[in-house]
Amino acid sequence: MSKIKVGVNGYGVIGKRVADAIRAQSDMELVGISDIISDYRLKTAAMLGIPVHSSLAAAEGEMKNAGIPIAGTFDKLISEVDVMVDCTPKGIAAKNLEKYKTAGVKAVLQGGEKHSVTGHSFVAQANYSSALNRDATRVVSCNTTSIIRTLGALHDASLLKKARGVLIRRATDPWESDHSGVMNTVVPESHIPSHQGPDAQTVRPELDLVTIAAKAAHTQCHNHYWVIELTRPASREEVLDAFRAAPRIAFIRMSDGIVALNSTIDLMQDLGRPRGDMWEVALWEDVLAVNGNEAYYTYQVDNQAIAIPENIDAIRALTGTVKDGRESIRMTDEAMGIKRCFLY
Amino acid sequence: MSKIKVGVNGYGVIGKRVADAIRAQSDMELVGISDIISDYRLKTAAMLGIPVHSSLAAAEGEMKNAGIPIAGTFDKLISEVDVMVDCTPKGIAAKNLEKYKTAGVKAVLQGGEKHSVTGHSFVAQANYSSALNRDATRVVSCNTTSIIRTLGALHDASLLKKARGVLIRRATDPWESDHSGVMNTVVPESHIPSHQGPDAQTVRPELDLVTIAAKAAHTQCHNHYWVIELTRPASREEVLDAFRAAPRIAFIRMSDGIVALNSTIDLMQDLGRPRGDMWEVALWEDVLAVNGNEAYYTYQVDNQAIAIPENIDAIRALTGTVKDGRESIRMTDEAMGIKRCFLY
Amino acid sequence: MSKIKVGVNGYGVIGKRVADAIRAQSDMELVGISDIISDYRLKTAAMLGIPVHSSLAAAEGEMKNAGIPIAGTFDKLISEVDVMVDCTPKGIAAKNLEKYKTAGVKAVLQGGEKHSVTGHSFVAQANYSSALNRDATRVVSCNTTSIIRTLGALHDASLLKKARGVLIRRATDPWESDHSGVMNTVVPESHIPSHQGPDAQTVRPELDLVTIAAKAAHTQCHNHYWVIELTRPASREEVLDAFRAAPRIAFIRMSDGIVALNSTIDLMQDLGRPRGDMWEVALWEDVLAVNGNEAYYTYQVDNQAIAIPENIDAIRALTGTVKDGRESIRMTDEAMGIKRCFLY
Amino acid sequence: MSKIKVGVNGYGVIGKRVADAIRAQSDMELVGISDIISDYRLKTAAMLGIPVHSSLAAAEGEMKNAGIPIAGTFDKLISEVDVMVDCTPKGIAAKNLEKYKTAGVKAVLQGGEKHSVTGHSFVAQANYSSALNRDATRVVSCNTTSIIRTLGALHDASLLKKARGVLIRRATDPWESDHSGVMNTVVPESHIPSHQGPDAQTVRPELDLVTIAAKAAHTQCHNHYWVIELTRPASREEVLDAFRAAPRIAFIRMSDGIVALNSTIDLMQDLGRPRGDMWEVALWEDVLAVNGNEAYYTYQVDNQAIAIPENIDAIRALTGTVKDGRESIRMTDEAMGIKRCFLY
Repeated sequence: MSKIKVGVNGYGVIGKRVADAIRAQSDMELVGISDIISDYRLKTAAMLGIPVHSSLAAAEGEMKNAGIPIAGTFDKLISEVDVMVDCTPKGIAAKNLEKYKTAGVKAVLQGGEKHSVTGHSFVAQANYSSALNRDATRVVSCNTTSIIRTLGALHDASLLKKARGVLIRRATDPWESDHSGVMNTVVPESHIPSHQGPDAQTVRPELDLVTIAAKAAHTQCHNHYWVIELTRPASREEVLDAFRAAPRIAFIRMSDGIVALNSTIDLMQDLGRPRGDMWEVALWEDVLAVNGNEAYYTYQVDNQAIAIPENIDAIRALTGTVKDGRESIRMTDEAMGIKRCFLY
Repeated sequence: MSKIKVGVNGYGVIGKRVADAIRAQSDMELVGISDIISDYRLKTAAMLGIPVHSSLAAAEGEMKNAGIPIAGTFDKLISEVDVMVDCTPKGIAAKNLEKYKTAGVKAVLQGGEKHSVTGHSFVAQANYSSALNRDATRVVSCNTTSIIRTLGALHDASLLKKARGVLIRRATDPWESDHSGVMNTVVPESHIPSHQGPDAQTVRPELDLVTIAAKAAHTQCHNHYWVIELTRPASREEVLDAFRAAPRIAFIRMSDGIVALNSTIDLMQDLGRPRGDMWEVALWEDVLAVNGNEAYYTYQVDNQAIAIPENIDAIRALTGTVKDGRESIRMTDEAMGIKRCFLY
Repeated sequence: MSKIKVGVNGYGVIGKRVADAIRAQSDMELVGISDIISDYRLKTAAMLGIPVHSSLAAAEGEMKNAGIPIAGTFDKLISEVDVMVDCTPKGIAAKNLEKYKTAGVKAVLQGGEKHSVTGHSFVAQANYSSALNRDATRVVSCNTTSIIRTLGALHDASLLKKARGVLIRRATDPWESDHSGVMNTVVPESHIPSHQGPDAQTVRPELDLVTIAAKAAHTQCHNHYWVIELTRPASREEVLDAFRAAPRIAFIRMSDGIVALNSTIDLMQDLGRPRGDMWEVALWEDVLAVNGNEAYYTYQVDNQAIAIPENIDAIRALTGTVKDGRESIRMTDEAMGIKRCFLY
Repeated sequence: MSKIKVGVNGYGVIGKRVADAIRAQSDMELVGISDIISDYRLKTAAMLGIPVHSSLAAAEGEMKNAGIPIAGTFDKLISEVDVMVDCTPKGIAAKNLEKYKTAGVKAVLQGGEKHSVTGHSFVAQANYSSALNRDATRVVSCNTTSIIRTLGALHDASLLKKARGVLIRRATDPWESDHSGVMNTVVPESHIPSHQGPDAQTVRPELDLVTIAAKAAHTQCHNHYWVIELTRPASREEVLDAFRAAPRIAFIRMSDGIVALNSTIDLMQDLGRPRGDMWEVALWEDVLAVNGNEAYYTYQVDNQAIAIPENIDAIRALTGTVKDGRESIRMTDEAMGIKRCFLY
């Protein structure tokens, strides 16, 4: 069977990880990437032998001057692929979409775009089948992905009545140094509910959830705290079993020395993960508490990594090469090394 | 009428603020302070003319060598006061308590001590009367004080059914530099519920509340997020009115540019507050949301300052010089400049 | 004698402190302030009874809507003062200067403006006399002020041959929360020498100095490290004496528990300083080392406060009301409480 | 030829990296590791198939309970190896040394131990030959290693007269979350010169250098700023060439978007480095400035990684299996992927 030909537009924090993940799949081929910058990221891509395209004619000269060999224009890349994964900053992909449609190329957009741009928002375990053979879909953002995975798991186990969550977000990405962080403070979002709740409902409208968000003074990983009203009194094991039944949720434990967000990152590095990435929702098994019909838990979301496997599944769904979402998830997870348990 | 003679043992982050507050009251006299260290804090106290005592014979030499005039021993200070406010580190006040009792001196302890040490935990607006003429009480910690003020307000307005809160704590105090902070991470407390909920029930056992806590990477002020189930559907104004009816809660607004914890601190400094202290719970008026019988809000707790006025009221309650808690609160608030509204 | 009538344009981090300092002088009157924003800072000014003017006609409506009484326009304020201290963001004061000149009003600009805008850069102890009766001067920035004070002291004692300094700057101001910080990193300035050295030479061209700068991940105070080649081998006491002979340098000591930048801020708060401000260069007396003809030392610069007294002196110099710089410094320092020694 | 049998005692931040590096060498065999803890680090080692030993009989039970298979005691591991690399916390290796000597096992200690413990301090490019066939050596700390590499390079090019450096250290390791950091401050070391200068002289006594150190509020990588007096006026290229001639120094450039410490870490992750480690001193090529006989530059030190290749070389030197230090450096660098240029 021929491989799915994929291009990645925008080689930043998400794009470079999507490119890595595509290269790890046996049923996909990374035809090339496209961007407008000429810094260490693009230089590294060129060193890895990835064909680099110039998204803007105006940028090509500077990229060449920086020593980056240019394989062609953005249009050329589009003409050579079946699917384009667009990882450009907020708002740009919406403009590119028409181009992709005209060229008959399927398009995967990211969570920075609005739901209405593609009319379909994607989390593999929730709605793979409704994305089959569509022209385009939007992989939802990191926070929303984590919410769908976890609340979806409780809902599928008929345990979820309603969910109220406090989301402590990282202030900026760890690689950012250009005046983009908040320092020595906490910044509450000015509106309750925050946007993540309604965003999750674009994927699963049946969820009764409210989110409250704030930014704290750290650079890596979001941290969610949830208060759940269950449909009935349940045991702790029943709630844990609901999470165990869902993919891409992995337990971590305080008793293993995973006591904070940075412990988990250190664990990912010990496990040899590329870039120390964590694609799973990491839920503290030994912190989760159940009291009557209420459950409380906290988990960690690697904002740079969690949506990467969803992008891979979205590629398969749009092209229709794999009909069953569970099979695509299995393929993706095996190729990337995604786990249910990190330590045993 | 003669003034209440007060001593302060432990001149650290809380002790020095209690000393300031005592000196601001017209019905109290700060007889002296006692400590064992000889750094800039004690030197400053000496410069201000506060009689400094040595809590340990072994420390006296070093204090004198540092140029701090020593007014006498800890025992001498005890013999000269009606009330001792003990602000020593966790566990020490419990040991001093016997000494105070033997000397017939009333004692105010801090929230680091256990409830059982004095058998009474104090927040002025909740239980002033039950502290009247007792030998000792414990002013509860900063987080617990804020919980009693706010949930107490909703309870007193017959609006509170149950409360679930996420407490984002500061990692260390702003003056600490001796390897005491958490950096670039969030550290969830390993147990849910966290201790603040049960601690609040030592003051108001009737409250149905659960707290979940974590430390974030900043140094000043805690930040609480609450999901409230009301006893009935209510309007936003009804909930705000409940808070308005209670003392020591002041509204802040995103629309005034108070958009984060550090904005509020800057405001306190603009208002000329000593040390930039905020004794009130600062609740974001324009973030609070009500939906049917649920309310959501966030507020800020100045962990160094919030319990200071409670210490002053506790002194009056133990000595019985003011019988009515509301009158003591009024006296304290007027002397210190405590407000309901910061900006109008 | 009639008081000098002063206006302050721009009521931000510097402007509000200059306004405070003017109000503390017996020979000056704060006629009013002018700004275009309507947040908590301006509301606080209005509460303090300071006449607030609107710098832009377009801003007046919003300021009134926010409940701030408007005393008049910027032009009205200009017409009522002898001197305007312009503390607006970089570049704006340069544009206002023509307006001040036309109105016959003297102008004090801040270090964000270029030297060429006024043709005179000011540090009181270095060049008060050359500013006498000028139309305008520029008070240099916080870092440059500290350099002139300290290297000037060594130069005046005929001890300075050359100076090489590393300046570790704070990343953003403590009140900033709007995406302006660098987090969990150090950002070296991309060019050596950094601009502070040449900037210091606009005040004292005779200094042989090179500065290297970087931003570290904290919000309050810069921290300078200097390697000095002396004109001759000298004793530690000789070097300390040179600093003691100069104004607005105050010693701090590790042995007093002042072990980091935040300790000093805590000390300022203990001393009752408004906003915890430190107007002096705080130099670690017990860290300074001298070896043969080399000296090494470190000091701390409160970037929000250090240039405030220089603004006051600049007002007197421009108006010519006090001819002797030393007398103006004495008046300013006494009115504000500026010290040579914090703790004895 | 038979492989050198190596054991690693202490599987923390350094030990786990040394173990990785040993496993990457074709002339070495990692016989096993030994430790006393039972957290995620040891569990990961067990998952990787590394034989785990128990350093203390008292710890064995807990390690087994945590599910870690125990291959034997510390004494058993010693009896099976030619060289033990001891990466235990400060002071412990000094006690173990007698044990290693009795067993006839060579020992590599880390920079936390004193020079006098082994009487030899090691940086491969400086003194490999003097370590040949010794019983033990000490690989110096991260800061000292970087100083020897860079100042050694200038000295070997006959360019170094004297060097004065300011070392901005990271406050704590990125994986640490147990109250070990300094927050929102800078902490100057209380003594000038700091210990790194004399420590470097244990390797190269001929260097004329003074170091001044401070801790800043970040968690990854130290950052050094140097002012160099050259033996003669030199060109920028001459100084760069001196660095180019030495191993394990790699240039980075602001113009490639490497603008801060965290940019470099992101680059290491892009390059696929295990744990994002950087074994090279990363020196900003386009920041380095030369003026007459003075040079100024800044570089970055990955404190977790820089001394790892030195440990590998030290193993070869002690066993005498490779006589020429340059050949050992070549072997180590090739096996680990150490570079002179990251991006071309």
